[in-house]
Amino acid sequence: MTIHFTKMHGLGNDFMVIDAINQAIELNPEQIRQWANRHFGIGFDQLLIVEPPKTADTLFTYRIFNADGGEVEQCGNGARCFARYVYDKGLTTEKEIPVGTASGRIVLHINDSGDVTVDMGRPMFTPTNIPFITECEATSYPLTLDDGSEWVIDAVSMGNPHAVLEVENVDTAPVSHLGPMIEHHRQFPNRVNVGFMQIVDRQHIRLRVFERGSGETLACGTGACAAVVSGIRRNRLDSPCLVDVRGGRLSVAWTGKTQDSVLMTGPAQSVFEGQITQTIA
Amino acid sequence: MTIHFTKMHGLGNDFMVIDAINQAIELNPEQIRQWANRHFGIGFDQLLIVEPPKTADTLFTYRIFNADGGEVEQCGNGARCFARYVYDKGLTTEKEIPVGTASGRIVLHINDSGDVTVDMGRPMFTPTNIPFITECEATSYPLTLDDGSEWVIDAVSMGNPHAVLEVENVDTAPVSHLGPMIEHHRQFPNRVNVGFMQIVDRQHIRLRVFERGSGETLACGTGACAAVVSGIRRNRLDSPCLVDVRGGRLSVAWTGKTQDSVLMTGPAQSVFEGQITQTIA
Repeated sequence: MTIHFTKMHGLGNDFMVIDAINQAIELNPEQIRQWANRHFGIGFDQLLIVEPPKTADTLFTYRIFNADGGEVEQCGNGARCFARYVYDKGLTTEKEIPVGTASGRIVLHINDSGDVTVDMGRPMFTPTNIPFITECEATSYPLTLDDGSEWVIDAVSMGNPHAVLEVENVDTAPVSHLGPMIEHHRQFPNRVNVGFMQIVDRQHIRLRVFERGSGETLACGTGACAAVVSGIRRNRLDSPCLVDVRGGRLSVAWTGKTQDSVLMTGPAQSVFEGQITQTIA
Repeated sequence: MTIHFTKMHGLGNDFMVIDAINQAIELNPEQIRQWANRHFGIGFDQLLIVEPPKTADTLFTYRIFNADGGEVEQCGNGARCFARYVYDKGLTTEKEIPVGTASGRIVLHINDSGDVTVDMGRPMFTPTNIPFITECEATSYPLTLDDGSEWVIDAVSMGNPHAVLEVENVDTAPVSHLGPMIEHHRQFPNRVNVGFMQIVDRQHIRLRVFERGSGETLACGTGACAAVVSGIRRNRLDSPCLVDVRGGRLSVAWTGKTQDSVLMTGPAQSVFEGQITQTIA
């Protein structure tokens, strides 16, 4: 059976997108791993599936699978591609697109520029919610690493844990040296994503992110949000703030109030259309 | 303008294949690099172009571009995919397919099994032709590495230079340690591809190849030929010989006579069909 798909990327975070409303597909982890392989298959970071809505207040169900075949809850770069896909393919004429995900309902908004804004949810600073082991909640925390060096970090959860370090220059920041040490630091029992933030001005940062379990990546949506939120909270940044990551540019907006969601805006790009024959029964 | 392409692989060495007979394409290095990028583009090791024949004794012209946009002369895994492509797409009904390449005419043969046999040309053992700096030509050579360790290697050219080491077990061979030291050894002025060969029996080897400029790869066609030719020359192997590489299995045949070509047989797999809009004028 031939499956039609679209290959897309959001700042280099790349996706295979399948319309499972207008074609029948069969998914299993082995099939997904085969498709995800960059030499033997199609190659992607995540597989995005467009399914019919499960609730009356959503237009679609948005499912996300990692390259290892496991289903995951959220992907900000993927959500932008999902929105452009359903709009560009004519599956909806709405530019305000509520979708159901494994972690609840989110609303995607297609801007006039073509960029997409994603509600990334509320930041959480309470240490037990991150989780981050500390004696008392603070804005920033000292952190002593295994090599004896001392750093100051902000700790925040965007649904996943983040540590943010301010650096003079991201180009020369010791990302590959500090990243693994902070990721596995004993005060982050679930490990942590590590952001290295260079403040250009109050509405513009440069950012490199060492992702938990993946190493440095081209663009980490939750990492961009975590960095901006941390900067706004310490009154070093203003909203909206541009974030230059290795794969391109995002914009992050937040009111500074913990009950308000973080809004992330960025591009989504279709690369090619494909057809593949499903080989696993 | 929309370009139709097919994504294929030969033992994990992967290719974008374009029919430039039935559609007009415009190639430039920037476009190729963009397509080759695995996150922002289609992703491939090489781009294979099917062009009309330039001579009466060939059916097609076979052009090969690396991911960096540069044109190269030969690729054994690519040649198998080229043959399957022109046959499966109905561009020829011949199973014996002479093609013109940048390094001359080669004949590709589609077997009844679906595997493809490629004439890989004649091996060269003369040191100046490899090039390998030594005082006298021999079958095997001692090689002293920068760390002081001593190894015995065979040196052979299959159009590109190869050093072949016999190891007890490829799984535990120090490929990443020895590979770079041998690749850059002063006796190989143009650097060298390094093959680590485990002899299973006289018609079966296991092989890992550290490719010049690329590091360890899934499947190196010329490396498989170099290893088998070296083994036959030292009377350790018989023709035809199975070669298990990381990406799968090849078969290499050679008469043992330097005037005869090496024949390599292996699979070629189509993965998906694609359409991409050419964005560069």
